[in-house]
Amino acid sequence: MSTVAGRMAVQAGAHSLEKAQGGAGVLLPGVPGVAPGKVTVIGGGVVGENAARMALGLGAEVTILDKSIARLEVLDDRYQGRIKTVYSTADALETATRESDMIIGAVLVPGAAAPKLITRSMLADMKPGSVLVDVAIDQGGCFETSKPTTHAEPTYIVDGVVHYCVANMPGAVARTSTQGLTNATLPFVLALADKGWQQALRDDPHFLPGLNVHAGQVTYQAVADAFGLESSDPASVVAAN
Amino acid sequence: MSTVAGRMAVQAGAHSLEKAQGGAGVLLPGVPGVAPGKVTVIGGGVVGENAARMALGLGAEVTILDKSIARLEVLDDRYQGRIKTVYSTADALETATRESDMIIGAVLVPGAAAPKLITRSMLADMKPGSVLVDVAIDQGGCFETSKPTTHAEPTYIVDGVVHYCVANMPGAVARTSTQGLTNATLPFVLALADKGWQQALRDDPHFLPGLNVHAGQVTYQAVADAFGLESSDPASVVAAN
Amino acid sequence: MSTVAGRMAVQAGAHSLEKAQGGAGVLLPGVPGVAPGKVTVIGGGVVGENAARMALGLGAEVTILDKSIARLEVLDDRYQGRIKTVYSTADALETATRESDMIIGAVLVPGAAAPKLITRSMLADMKPGSVLVDVAIDQGGCFETSKPTTHAEPTYIVDGVVHYCVANMPGAVARTSTQGLTNATLPFVLALADKGWQQALRDDPHFLPGLNVHAGQVTYQAVADAFGLESSDPASVVAAN
Amino acid sequence: MSTVAGRMAVQAGAHSLEKAQGGAGVLLPGVPGVAPGKVTVIGGGVVGENAARMALGLGAEVTILDKSIARLEVLDDRYQGRIKTVYSTADALETATRESDMIIGAVLVPGAAAPKLITRSMLADMKPGSVLVDVAIDQGGCFETSKPTTHAEPTYIVDGVVHYCVANMPGAVARTSTQGLTNATLPFVLALADKGWQQALRDDPHFLPGLNVHAGQVTYQAVADAFGLESSDPASVVAAN
Amino acid sequence: MSTVAGRMAVQAGAHSLEKAQGGAGVLLPGVPGVAPGKVTVIGGGVVGENAARMALGLGAEVTILDKSIARLEVLDDRYQGRIKTVYSTADALETATRESDMIIGAVLVPGAAAPKLITRSMLADMKPGSVLVDVAIDQGGCFETSKPTTHAEPTYIVDGVVHYCVANMPGAVARTSTQGLTNATLPFVLALADKGWQQALRDDPHFLPGLNVHAGQVTYQAVADAFGLESSDPASVVAAN
Amino acid sequence: MSTVAGRMAVQAGAHSLEKAQGGAGVLLPGVPGVAPGKVTVIGGGVVGENAARMALGLGAEVTILDKSIARLEVLDDRYQGRIKTVYSTADALETATRESDMIIGAVLVPGAAAPKLITRSMLADMKPGSVLVDVAIDQGGCFETSKPTTHAEPTYIVDGVVHYCVANMPGAVARTSTQGLTNATLPFVLALADKGWQQALRDDPHFLPGLNVHAGQVTYQAVADAFGLESSDPASVVAAN
Repeated sequence: MSTVAGRMAVQAGAHSLEKAQGGAGVLLPGVPGVAPGKVTVIGGGVVGENAARMALGLGAEVTILDKSIARLEVLDDRYQGRIKTVYSTADALETATRESDMIIGAVLVPGAAAPKLITRSMLADMKPGSVLVDVAIDQGGCFETSKPTTHAEPTYIVDGVVHYCVANMPGAVARTSTQGLTNATLPFVLALADKGWQQALRDDPHFLPGLNVHAGQVTYQAVADAFGLESSDPASVVAAN
Repeated sequence: MSTVAGRMAVQAGAHSLEKAQGGAGVLLPGVPGVAPGKVTVIGGGVVGENAARMALGLGAEVTILDKSIARLEVLDDRYQGRIKTVYSTADALETATRESDMIIGAVLVPGAAAPKLITRSMLADMKPGSVLVDVAIDQGGCFETSKPTTHAEPTYIVDGVVHYCVANMPGAVARTSTQGLTNATLPFVLALADKGWQQALRDDPHFLPGLNVHAGQVTYQAVADAFGLESSDPASVVAAN
Repeated sequence: MSTVAGRMAVQAGAHSLEKAQGGAGVLLPGVPGVAPGKVTVIGGGVVGENAARMALGLGAEVTILDKSIARLEVLDDRYQGRIKTVYSTADALETATRESDMIIGAVLVPGAAAPKLITRSMLADMKPGSVLVDVAIDQGGCFETSKPTTHAEPTYIVDGVVHYCVANMPGAVARTSTQGLTNATLPFVLALADKGWQQALRDDPHFLPGLNVHAGQVTYQAVADAFGLESSDPASVVAAN
Repeated sequence: MSTVAGRMAVQAGAHSLEKAQGGAGVLLPGVPGVAPGKVTVIGGGVVGENAARMALGLGAEVTILDKSIARLEVLDDRYQGRIKTVYSTADALETATRESDMIIGAVLVPGAAAPKLITRSMLADMKPGSVLVDVAIDQGGCFETSKPTTHAEPTYIVDGVVHYCVANMPGAVARTSTQGLTNATLPFVLALADKGWQQALRDDPHFLPGLNVHAGQVTYQAVADAFGLESSDPASVVAAN
Repeated sequence: MSTVAGRMAVQAGAHSLEKAQGGAGVLLPGVPGVAPGKVTVIGGGVVGENAARMALGLGAEVTILDKSIARLEVLDDRYQGRIKTVYSTADALETATRESDMIIGAVLVPGAAAPKLITRSMLADMKPGSVLVDVAIDQGGCFETSKPTTHAEPTYIVDGVVHYCVANMPGAVARTSTQGLTNATLPFVLALADKGWQQALRDDPHFLPGLNVHAGQVTYQAVADAFGLESSDPASVVAAN
Repeated sequence: MSTVAGRMAVQAGAHSLEKAQGGAGVLLPGVPGVAPGKVTVIGGGVVGENAARMALGLGAEVTILDKSIARLEVLDDRYQGRIKTVYSTADALETATRESDMIIGAVLVPGAAAPKLITRSMLADMKPGSVLVDVAIDQGGCFETSKPTTHAEPTYIVDGVVHYCVANMPGAVARTSTQGLTNATLPFVLALADKGWQQALRDDPHFLPGLNVHAGQVTYQAVADAFGLESSDPASVVAAN
């Protein structure tokens, strides 16, 4: 679903930039003689890369911020410099807020609450009608002013900045999402059906970490941390069943 | 404004494909394992090319229909086969209605009413939730079921097909449009201000055809034809003033 | 040799599509106004990717089917959506047979017999003069109607479908193949010459699995399975010599 | 048909480079570690550009020779340096014969006999098993050793060099060719049917030069020159009928 | 020579950006995590496009300013948005001076003195160690602080800004320049030798404007304007000889 | 710093090819009608790939030599054949010396002396004014005739071949280098400051091999080998402190 959310983020953000949505009325690709819009993507993982790729495809000027040089190297190799890669610092974030027409928050820590990268006070530096798209909203959001919205009312405005914070973004493209999810999960579903969950988890080291909770025990470290609980090793749970 | 409208068409159509807008819930780029959406653009002029370019940028499978082989050759050269070019026939239009997730009508005859390319009966062959974007709506629209809409209520549904027919598409991205328009018209405005309209039109053969009506006389052939009026030659009007 | 075979497959298939070979007379890139041919590659490994890359280079519309989402993600990243990636299901295979001008079978299970992906009855759905290229023919072929052919008589026709099933495809481009093979094997040959086979295999964990048979014992699992024999561990064979 | 012939030329040449056809056994794209084959295209018009584009798509190292700097500039702009452009001189032709694995002759002077660019004595400098594809064969061929062949026996060998000189190349991909030709000629056919030939030619300055012969008079300059006849102006012929 | 000068401009400018030349020590492509340098090219003609293309090839962020929307459209089509195109205004020039690491002046009015686009006072807004490359220096230069330099001492510094103003840039790559010039002029030289200058100019409307001065008469309008002289029509000069 | 050095190598080499530096006066991209310069990069690691990428960006004809087929496959996939990959043999090196306008030595064995790939006698085969850029000069250089130079006098000439052997190449672009280095080292610096060196090295298996020398003991194998010393395991050194 990360791929879907990342790819949808730009489509949602481009729509939010339209006048009728309260946006600045900027067309991402610009036109000959008018420079393109600037899109900053915070986080260069699967979500962020897919968002950046769509923004690039539309002709925007695209920058990715990330704290992993190794990941930025992969992106620089893959896009051959067409996407600007910038090491994520407080400074880089401030520049992003001042200059961007759209900022996409794509900082996901699996299972854990996302860090707050743009604070309310930083909104004052943003251009009127610029857009924040918070793809991390399902995990609390990575902007201080984010709060979950729905596809029926996807955006709201704080300090002149349009916020798009739909909690279930892939739901908007349910057909593509369902097909993608089916493809990804079918092998696991078949294993569960054929073998029962204990054996299925035992046989597949990629499946085992998929066990999050069993009989009251949290078996996923990050979830446990987020709720202040203790976690158990899923392998021992499976072994005991 | 053709460039703006063409580039916006895909953004509008992608949004219309979302579930909340009544669309099929298809994400144009697809995801790995799920094929991309199919976009057909009817008309390979400035509007059509810009629409196709954006659809291509988002990762859709894109086909342009046009009746000019010379124009299709230009597009094939420029996009090196990444956009499929198909000679526009009744057959090709029927295939497009059956297979496309989005059809963009970009057939503009300057000043004249656009031909109706997709009739109501053809809608029955379209997939449920597929999308028609009529960029020719300002000139009457190129689909039989098109009627002008606004940015406040941009779409309506006929026979399960979402219609996006906003009459003033560039208004949604007013900032980019205004900048683009200013760049394009400034030289003419300066000429008008400096020389008066008669001299300005006399001095510039590209400006002269810009005279559409003067003192009750229509001086633009296609407009005259569309209203069943006679037209005068703008040069003789200018000469007489 | 997988790279050579994959890259040659499209060249062989394009030739087979010519009228004189019994093909449909379709030129893969099409021309402006005539849509390109559709090529489906079954299997997204080294053979399949190289075949798809050549088909893309010639301007065909290219789809890869594979059962590994992870592999499809790699291909989608690398080709940035220019190659369509589709999760391989019975449904996807049927669509491929109905719509493709060329299908390339590139499903190789190292050392084992290839699965039969297209049955004889499915040929009836294929377009007359379409082409099957079976790169897995050395391991029994992945189409039911495949049988090995030679460069002298590379194709035959079943139910109107041209089959290209040359058993030793890289032999056609012997010069390139020999150079490639020499580059790839020289380090191993030098190790054998310098150290003797036992020590050479002992020193290099990538070389060890290269031992297939020794003194009557099959030491490669997949080969043993294909012939219904037992296999031994190559490490123990080496240790005993 | 120039587009078809140009695009087919590389497919034909690649096949001719195979061992079974007497070629050097070179795979145009090479493989990692083995450099690609070198293709020289003589003539940068429609035929030559399309041939070069296909060779580039297959991964060959491609050079176009032409005598028009303006045309080479167009090609350099369009392919951004991916195709090498070299001003055509005797020197450049000699380098091409010495270094190329495939030379495609694409020098067409409409209606006139093609000049002989590679003489028999120059074949001695070519690599054994290299390939000449003469797309100008319908107008006498642009290599001294060219003579027309058929799709049944497309190649022959002179001094170790494989010659592909099929007189009707587009016939091999009859389906694509017919569709392309129909698209291109339909408007003219309709005009002939609707208006009669005299009026149709009178109304369309692009159609008029299509008249080659009428009532014993040659009305196309280059054809007349090639046969040592006098030519008449087609306009005067039409006016008189 | 415009192509050579444009392509060399970036190479010269990149070198000038090095510390040892007094530059800011900025590497145009940046590295993963460090954004690329910004290059602004003023003038989107042959010189400007070639400069921009090289800057793009090195991975810089590239903007072209021009007053012709039609030209910017060509560039936007050709580079598909990878080069930013901005309509040239006083505002755009000021932004360029504030933000660019390198500005390339490529505003050539054939035969006439170039306009001064960046004044001395604007240098104060430029970043210390940024670079101006004045390709128009042969016609007086397009920056107020430009004065001709040589390949021996190519740069000087004014107000902290490195100026590269070598008067004969193509001389640095004499071999490529000579070959290019020979290719371009050979047909004219042959015509002069074969026919004498009068007939050669008469026969070729592209050659005729090449006559700049004859028997004390200036026959090239822009040159005459620059020196405050009257000009004659070259055709009448030729007719009289 | 490898990325910086690789990217700078082409900029330095292009400058060295200019006449004023003693070079052949070749412009890497050539111009339409004049073929581009040939650049060979020896070593396909980070330095080599980045050098090749810049040379490609400037429009040169680029070949990478390497002894690792796996690495050449990565490069071939990434650049899709736009960079020629050749398995490095004595033969390939000789061809490179005969044909290249620029050779970039990028063979780095971490911590060890670089092998001498081009001997003095091979210089005789090189074209007059061709350029050697030795990026391995910090480790003794990979050409026999290399000796360290400075940014003040970056080049010298041996047997007509320009040598660029600046020992601290990244120093020329100090600003980009410093930013890149800070990004890469900051996490390690913070760990050192927070935890002390022993704990920091213990906690991070990527940091541990960074210990080269401690209390008179060399803890990096390749360094020890180069100086004929014994090396200790850094883990045991850390454990003992």
